[in-house]
Amino acid sequence: MRLRHLPVAALLVLTAAAQDRSRVLGEFTDFLRIPNVAADPAGLRRNAEWIRSALQRRGVQAALLQVPGAVPAVFGELRIPDATQTVLFYAHYDGQPVDPGQWHGSGPFEPSLRGGSPDDPEARLYARSSSDDKAPVIAMLAALDSLRASGVRPSINLKFLFEGEEEAGSRNLGRILAANRAAVDADYWVICDGPVHQTRRMQIYFGARGVTGFNLTVYGPRRELHSGHYGNWAPNPALMLSRLLASMKDDEGRVLITGFYDGVQPLSEIEINAMKGEPPIDEALQRELWIARSENSPQRLIEVINQPSFNIRGLASAAVGDASRNVIPTEATVSVDIRLVKGNDPQAMLEKVKAHIRDQGFFLAENRAPTEFERLQWPKVASITTAEGGYRAVRTPMDLPASQQVIAAVERVHGPVIKMPTLGGSVPLAIIDDVVHVPLIGVPIVNHDNNQHSHNENLRLQNLWDGIRTFEALFTMPARSTGQPR
Amino acid sequence: MRLRHLPVAALLVLTAAAQDRSRVLGEFTDFLRIPNVAADPAGLRRNAEWIRSALQRRGVQAALLQVPGAVPAVFGELRIPDATQTVLFYAHYDGQPVDPGQWHGSGPFEPSLRGGSPDDPEARLYARSSSDDKAPVIAMLAALDSLRASGVRPSINLKFLFEGEEEAGSRNLGRILAANRAAVDADYWVICDGPVHQTRRMQIYFGARGVTGFNLTVYGPRRELHSGHYGNWAPNPALMLSRLLASMKDDEGRVLITGFYDGVQPLSEIEINAMKGEPPIDEALQRELWIARSENSPQRLIEVINQPSFNIRGLASAAVGDASRNVIPTEATVSVDIRLVKGNDPQAMLEKVKAHIRDQGFFLAENRAPTEFERLQWPKVASITTAEGGYRAVRTPMDLPASQQVIAAVERVHGPVIKMPTLGGSVPLAIIDDVVHVPLIGVPIVNHDNNQHSHNENLRLQNLWDGIRTFEALFTMPARSTGQPR
Repeated sequence: MRLRHLPVAALLVLTAAAQDRSRVLGEFTDFLRIPNVAADPAGLRRNAEWIRSALQRRGVQAALLQVPGAVPAVFGELRIPDATQTVLFYAHYDGQPVDPGQWHGSGPFEPSLRGGSPDDPEARLYARSSSDDKAPVIAMLAALDSLRASGVRPSINLKFLFEGEEEAGSRNLGRILAANRAAVDADYWVICDGPVHQTRRMQIYFGARGVTGFNLTVYGPRRELHSGHYGNWAPNPALMLSRLLASMKDDEGRVLITGFYDGVQPLSEIEINAMKGEPPIDEALQRELWIARSENSPQRLIEVINQPSFNIRGLASAAVGDASRNVIPTEATVSVDIRLVKGNDPQAMLEKVKAHIRDQGFFLAENRAPTEFERLQWPKVASITTAEGGYRAVRTPMDLPASQQVIAAVERVHGPVIKMPTLGGSVPLAIIDDVVHVPLIGVPIVNHDNNQHSHNENLRLQNLWDGIRTFEALFTMPARSTGQPR
Repeated sequence: MRLRHLPVAALLVLTAAAQDRSRVLGEFTDFLRIPNVAADPAGLRRNAEWIRSALQRRGVQAALLQVPGAVPAVFGELRIPDATQTVLFYAHYDGQPVDPGQWHGSGPFEPSLRGGSPDDPEARLYARSSSDDKAPVIAMLAALDSLRASGVRPSINLKFLFEGEEEAGSRNLGRILAANRAAVDADYWVICDGPVHQTRRMQIYFGARGVTGFNLTVYGPRRELHSGHYGNWAPNPALMLSRLLASMKDDEGRVLITGFYDGVQPLSEIEINAMKGEPPIDEALQRELWIARSENSPQRLIEVINQPSFNIRGLASAAVGDASRNVIPTEATVSVDIRLVKGNDPQAMLEKVKAHIRDQGFFLAENRAPTEFERLQWPKVASITTAEGGYRAVRTPMDLPASQQVIAAVERVHGPVIKMPTLGGSVPLAIIDDVVHVPLIGVPIVNHDNNQHSHNENLRLQNLWDGIRTFEALFTMPARSTGQPR
């Protein structure tokens, strides 16, 4: 912490916040106990109502933004007299699905602190969404508290938007924004999602990969067959799927689907220079993760993130291990996510995948099961489900005044930050950009090794304390003189 | 039914049996209610005790054959004064593992009759092991009853051996036989396992494929990673596994592992001629199973069964469908069974697989997890588990007197039967052959479309009634004059 950079007001804030850490953790624990998975809409709604109350208790005008068929988003607004700028802070309160049996020690919605006392900065809070993405919600609430406790007024009008369907692809966010254009109007948005840098240093990202994905099922015999009586006669769907996947990506990690890398928009000079400033992390990451060779080596992680990716996120066919049975399975399914960079269109990428599958000799049914007739007609039959849709990547130029203002505010409390042209993880920037047309700048606060999207998700406490400082700085950053009162 | 072939005694038998069908089904239902999976040793033991009591009630001397660490086998003996031959009838009472959620209508151990009344020959009894392999046990018991009811005495000394670990690879059968050589001594064995022909005609098999198998896990990053932040940088184990499997077998079903087809012992002329007598079934089977093209076509099923097979019986990595998460999985696992024909050695086949995996650049840990050091050293790391061992194939010559005697007995009640040199499914003939050195002849009774090894296993009732006739015929077959009283 570089105290010499801090104004007096910030020092007061620090003192007040230190006294309130146990209260912050208590409030966070209450929040994490509310299940927040897509399969539980009632749980999601309780989360939204919890946030609305928490904002209202702090004098923020808050409401649920609702459109038919969607999980509500929570909107909040704190108007500051004579402020010339308005910044909207975005986070999401829903979490990835959970598999409780895989969680150690405590369940996904039984928050537990491990590895130290609440005073230990290396202690971690375990629960679904402890990082992704309830931590920024709590950090913003705590920053509002510490400013008030110190008698410091925000320098800008603050708006908040907390979404409830981000992990489900933000499929209704566009409709919610379009129905509430005036409410969400702002000079720019700060997107609070994703992790800090792997070196634990703060980073700001100016774009994020888009995402799409699909489930693909390959069909074998109509019913499971005894592998002795029919083995090497009945076609095996798991083998057909393996051969198909092998045709899609080579041993070095290069995607072999025709046109997969077409149309990628090159990085600008300022972006390339910013990437050079990133500390080397690949070797340390490989050691940490027990990886002898990364895909697409010798390109570094920060480089490959600026390329589209093709990732197998799951495979399933009959059973393995003790549960395996001597059968020829009826089908084999793969789940794939495709990360997109600036220049990729989600639908066009899926079309390239479908064309590749057909080029391999498959009959491909789209979003339906193949018929008996089709299965009797074609030696290789698959069906693809592309229900999740997806969204494109967005990149905000680093040299915009808004970009420079956010960099300055964060560096004031944390010193030099890492500037990423593109975050690897997807945040629904395109869905926002389609409606609001203002700069979108990402300020993440959580640790990179947080098991987000997996079991045993956790938040390192120091990241929470640092995150509160970050929002204090953003809420009180010097207003730009060019703005008009609004 | 060709009544003109039946002796008067058999007609009496038929009449008695018809009256007793509901009693047979009642007893069968009691038997099927006792869970019989390897994970439940107490349940297996209750099955063994149930069979012992059922034999004893019928005047058969019965005992459990036990060796330390093994599930008991049930032995029974019915000595006939002046009989010159002794034939042992083998079946097994254990079943494949079950996944109760996949069973429709009723659970695996809640027998239910569907598709007709008990009088309807096309009605089916659903339960685990209703076919594989409790049906022969019940049919033998019912045949003993109907002979007694008709006052007909068996013509040969009868021995029975019911194993409890066949689906677990018969790993202790050799020890059980070696410890009980005198008890299990017989002129030959009749193996009662497997299905009748797909045309529903009776078949007799003179050998069976052997079997071995393995589980193989390919390793990715040490912990699940967010597929956005690390996708196309962290190596994906599901892709590596897919590429490995694709290298093992081609699109036509030909196994690409070096030496996989070496050493296969060719069929003799009598065996080739017997195969020519098999009615054509491939086209009808393909229509029934919705298969447009079989592996290794244009070879017929009966032909490819005389080749070793390589079958993926299961695949797993993270999750698919609604449970999928945007992660790079930590590992991907395949479960494979390899069917063996005469001339293949199980261990040698596994060695060929391992050599192939290493040839693809993998570091391969055997029956253990790889270490951190190994994972940091090698770009491609896998572990193989070969705990199940396996056994070789056996083929009994069709022209032996024993073979001719069994053919004649079965044809006396069912007319011309199909004679298979090799059954596709594996029965532990080699394990028996290693100890007892007598002819082994397979007489199956259950329907081919029985979902054995899968969910919703079932038995077509007419197969049970026909099976009782089969055992009546075998128990009363004319003794060969060459035998000495024993």
